[in-house]
Amino acid sequence: MSQEKIKRITDAVSVHPDFPKPGIVFMNIFPVLHDPSLFKDLIDVMIESVRTNAAGAQLIVGLDARGFLFGPMIAQALGIGFSPIRKAGKLPGETHSVTYKLEYGQDTFDIEKNAVSPGEKVVIVDDLLATGGTMKAACDLVCKAGGEVLQCLVIMELEDLRGQDKVAMPVTTLIKY
Amino acid sequence: MSQEKIKRITDAVSVHPDFPKPGIVFMNIFPVLHDPSLFKDLIDVMIESVRTNAAGAQLIVGLDARGFLFGPMIAQALGIGFSPIRKAGKLPGETHSVTYKLEYGQDTFDIEKNAVSPGEKVVIVDDLLATGGTMKAACDLVCKAGGEVLQCLVIMELEDLRGQDKVAMPVTTLIKY
Repeated sequence: MSQEKIKRITDAVSVHPDFPKPGIVFMNIFPVLHDPSLFKDLIDVMIESVRTNAAGAQLIVGLDARGFLFGPMIAQALGIGFSPIRKAGKLPGETHSVTYKLEYGQDTFDIEKNAVSPGEKVVIVDDLLATGGTMKAACDLVCKAGGEVLQCLVIMELEDLRGQDKVAMPVTTLIKY
Repeated sequence: MSQEKIKRITDAVSVHPDFPKPGIVFMNIFPVLHDPSLFKDLIDVMIESVRTNAAGAQLIVGLDARGFLFGPMIAQALGIGFSPIRKAGKLPGETHSVTYKLEYGQDTFDIEKNAVSPGEKVVIVDDLLATGGTMKAACDLVCKAGGEVLQCLVIMELEDLRGQDKVAMPVTTLIKY
């Protein structure tokens, strides 16, 4: 059942070579969100993955910006809270920060200091795993804030880039390229 | 009922003067998302607003990045599609663009050319209406893509800045400051 849903979702993702820069392949998830029935299938599969692979999750953390599309819906379906990880300077109040390399340059992530309770079991959500630099930084940030990462959940993964090796936390991927 | 929910949501929003720059007041919605019961109330009120003020809506458009937190849930609850408006250079394929002024500087928005069907009835979702420059640009972009804006839905509005005058489309606000 999930496999059929994932097949339909995979068929709807549009692939854009050399975007936003030469050598980068951009996997565009937005056509899935444009179709309410496909989008429902995607969210259902993501929720099922958290229930299966991260039982007891207490908080969903979504990465700016595409993790914001999916994280809140998963959190609400499970009856747990949602907290964001954002690019530097976007979150007010006291924050923890981590600077990391990504496919094209480097960036800094912030999380609010009160976003994660000590020992809280966390699932981190994003749309894509590429080199893993972004997801590793997110894991480091959740740990710095006192949380325990149960699962990193991404929709798509570019397997050749070996991002899972870098992250060193359990990563679940729905679609592997 | 809605008024009670809105009161509880209002109490949870944290207010940060002089963030991200002196003279700007940052209204932080994230504490609401951190509490699953409050977050459910917020989404319920937003859905009710679309049902009441934008009957027949066919598409939800969310603004990068905080509109991504709410737009997809509203779209799914109504059984309609979701499309994003993003900062320049973030969407692949063919796009329409609009450049606009905002409280602190200027910016460019993109929408995918196939994101909106001709004549489609659209609700635009964001968290905050300030000067209205961002929302006006979003309306211009949806029109450029062939859509009809039924409603601009924001959670919070800084009334003194008279953003509604600038937008010139129907704006619904849950919390006015």
